[in-house]
Amino acid sequence: MARNIVFCLAIFVFLLGSASADCCISPPRQQITLKNYCEAWRMNVELRNIRDFEVVPEECVSYIENYMTSSQYKVDSERTIDEINVYLSNYNCRFLKDGTDAWIFDIDDTLLSTIPYYKNNGFGGQKLNLSSLEEWMSQGRAPALEHSVKLFNILKGQGFQIILVSSRRETLRAATIDNLVDQGIFGWTNLILRGANDESKNIKNFKSDVRKQLISKGCNVWGILGDQWSSIEGHPSAKGAFKLPNPLYYVV
Amino acid sequence: MARNIVFCLAIFVFLLGSASADCCISPPRQQITLKNYCEAWRMNVELRNIRDFEVVPEECVSYIENYMTSSQYKVDSERTIDEINVYLSNYNCRFLKDGTDAWIFDIDDTLLSTIPYYKNNGFGGQKLNLSSLEEWMSQGRAPALEHSVKLFNILKGQGFQIILVSSRRETLRAATIDNLVDQGIFGWTNLILRGANDESKNIKNFKSDVRKQLISKGCNVWGILGDQWSSIEGHPSAKGAFKLPNPLYYVV
Repeated sequence: MARNIVFCLAIFVFLLGSASADCCISPPRQQITLKNYCEAWRMNVELRNIRDFEVVPEECVSYIENYMTSSQYKVDSERTIDEINVYLSNYNCRFLKDGTDAWIFDIDDTLLSTIPYYKNNGFGGQKLNLSSLEEWMSQGRAPALEHSVKLFNILKGQGFQIILVSSRRETLRAATIDNLVDQGIFGWTNLILRGANDESKNIKNFKSDVRKQLISKGCNVWGILGDQWSSIEGHPSAKGAFKLPNPLYYVV
Repeated sequence: MARNIVFCLAIFVFLLGSASADCCISPPRQQITLKNYCEAWRMNVELRNIRDFEVVPEECVSYIENYMTSSQYKVDSERTIDEINVYLSNYNCRFLKDGTDAWIFDIDDTLLSTIPYYKNNGFGGQKLNLSSLEEWMSQGRAPALEHSVKLFNILKGQGFQIILVSSRRETLRAATIDNLVDQGIFGWTNLILRGANDESKNIKNFKSDVRKQLISKGCNVWGILGDQWSSIEGHPSAKGAFKLPNPLYYVV
């Protein structure tokens, strides 16, 4: 009897082993390094395959900090602006040049950098503390991102309406204007921030609605520069929608 | 008289100098390395900021060859598939499971790799020679990309219709089927290639039209996996549209 039970148990364990081999164990992947892993994470964020992430994976925080403070981040961003200049020269003859040509800019991590804030707040590895970020924004000390300011000035010089559209709240209006002007950014046509009525919308819908209104008022929106997919997706968009790299956070 | 002319010339040269300082000379950029430059090029291709390129910049051909044959390319691609698996488990309860759930795959550089061809043909640095590429495709020797085949089999196992949509021409149908089956890829519902009527359309419109037809026939297209923006953009798209990395060529 005891031998029969042992035999049955052996068969059971064997079957269990085969079943798990069939259903649960994948063929082994090649060894990858932490750098491989974090680089793949960053690439898939920029490809918009990784969406809605709340924090940078803990093991990649140092990698992301290194990237965002590296010359590579600057060179990547400068290249985005170079491509916009190619676009502007290709489309130059189609611009209306009657005061209705317009370009939309994000503010944070497009014209102004939030890196000094994130340096002191976990560099993407901590869940966003909005009141702490807003407290920092209210101090108006965000430095300019020079490559984008250069584009801002080129477009201003070409007579474009410059429309700043930001997910910052209206309560930050005065601090935002002070910060921008202090950093040499001025001459925009419109600064659109999130009012109380916009709080219920996600940022993609808020920004799409703003574009809808601008177009209905006669603006010809030729392009958008933002660091988030939610700044350039949704309808209506613009032919010249360009995205700066930003693997630090994700705005829905 | 001669002194006056020299004086005028000096003034002229001075004015020319000031004018060019105002209008044409940008502040010097920091020194960048070739690696910085090529990495920024690749990143901006994947961000869809660099569009319609015909060749990889000559100075970056080696860099792109290194990337496309590196473990990083594999890890980047595997991460894309991981994110699709996250998407599939999040949406699992919404799938209809009545035979109408569908997923679209590209073929080249999604299920099959064209790297062996490009290895012998300038690795993106030469303008596309379509007849030479088609001649290579007709031999049916493209190797499978394992990460995507794994997804293919998972979806097949879940009862999805697998629709292969490729910019390959109808003339390559037999060779394509042989190549796919030979690489262990089989069990698709539909293999849609470009017929004579589609030749006038660009690939983005061809693929959007295919999706329109599939949806009108009752398919529920939950997702697309492709390596080109033209495979996943246009209307209708799919909520689960994912892009594999591919800085080797650009399909409009």
